[in-house]
Amino acid sequence: MSNDEVILLDFWVSPFAIRAKIALAEKGVEFEARQEDLLGTKSELLLTSNPIYKKVPVLLHNGKAVNESSIIVSYIDEVWPTPALLPPCAYGRATARFWADYVDKKVFDGGSKIWKSKGDEVAVAKAEFIEILKVLEGALGEKNFFGGDTYGFVDIITIPLASWFYAYEQYGGFKVEVEAPKIAAWINRSLEKESVASVYPDPIKVYEFVGMLRKFNGIE
Amino acid sequence: MSNDEVILLDFWVSPFAIRAKIALAEKGVEFEARQEDLLGTKSELLLTSNPIYKKVPVLLHNGKAVNESSIIVSYIDEVWPTPALLPPCAYGRATARFWADYVDKKVFDGGSKIWKSKGDEVAVAKAEFIEILKVLEGALGEKNFFGGDTYGFVDIITIPLASWFYAYEQYGGFKVEVEAPKIAAWINRSLEKESVASVYPDPIKVYEFVGMLRKFNGIE
Repeated sequence: MSNDEVILLDFWVSPFAIRAKIALAEKGVEFEARQEDLLGTKSELLLTSNPIYKKVPVLLHNGKAVNESSIIVSYIDEVWPTPALLPPCAYGRATARFWADYVDKKVFDGGSKIWKSKGDEVAVAKAEFIEILKVLEGALGEKNFFGGDTYGFVDIITIPLASWFYAYEQYGGFKVEVEAPKIAAWINRSLEKESVASVYPDPIKVYEFVGMLRKFNGIE
Repeated sequence: MSNDEVILLDFWVSPFAIRAKIALAEKGVEFEARQEDLLGTKSELLLTSNPIYKKVPVLLHNGKAVNESSIIVSYIDEVWPTPALLPPCAYGRATARFWADYVDKKVFDGGSKIWKSKGDEVAVAKAEFIEILKVLEGALGEKNFFGGDTYGFVDIITIPLASWFYAYEQYGGFKVEVEAPKIAAWINRSLEKESVASVYPDPIKVYEFVGMLRKFNGIE
């Protein structure tokens, strides 16, 4: 396994690339992260290894490209099975995939709607986002992590998105710890993990990045 | 295994429910399909077993609910492993999941855009949809099926959507067999399979259903 060449095409603020980094760290897999300049020119390697979407992350494992972050995390879990990220039973796996898919469909786009909105639309976007967080609180329940006592697939899919929450709070005028205190506590527990803390971007830097995106999109 | 209770909450024209029906047929699993009245009142069982989305299909396996059609097909493949729908190697599985995900993101919404459009928008939607079919032709290549010589995960995810293509052709003014002949040939090969043919809705009835949706949505 030490002969494996593992390269991640990466962009520091991409929550999707961070998923792959946390999964690799959980598995103890060494890898090289290559930064892409997504606001400038994309590398030839990115264009040829993800010709359909041309975006990060791409996992290059011994030269073979795996695309789409949730699929990359599944792939990592199958190639390096210890510790397992998905539960051992088929029903547990289906449930984890359901919530990961819910997060994929809702959280990033829902949060983006807050900072992309103007005027009265902001309150609507904020209310929708808080509703999404409350649904996730229901899925978390009284557990420490979505995976139970161990850090699992849904945790790894979700936690990188939390690094953007401070920006959503600033542009939406709300506090996650007030609206969804169980999610806030889960974020804090997650950040106690070295695999997460070591790759989690500074939420203030993410907020500055979002401010730049807003200017770039002519929102302010 | 004969003691398993397998119920599918179903709606005849739903390509997503048809995925589950084909997967169960491929595995030789007997099940009861319960029709939901999606244009009328949804059953209490649907509302309680899929509280997040409240839509079909729902697979109830010994009383446990599995939601979201691609996740249902994965679940079926794990619980009843023969014949395998996903490839044996992790890279093959990641590739199959990538294309299934591409189909999930693009085909139904892309096709719906054609019949939901008016005027000049129709030509744009048609061109985008044909582009999606050409990407899928690239993924199919010279193989008989997306799964190679055997009918696999991507085939089962994609073929039910083809029952809506006739409606897209009528409203878009194009022919799949002209624009994407390899896809047209793949549809015909798929329809030679009993597992597909037995649950594939009549494309003319789907077209009539889409016509009703257009009236319902005030498009015509």
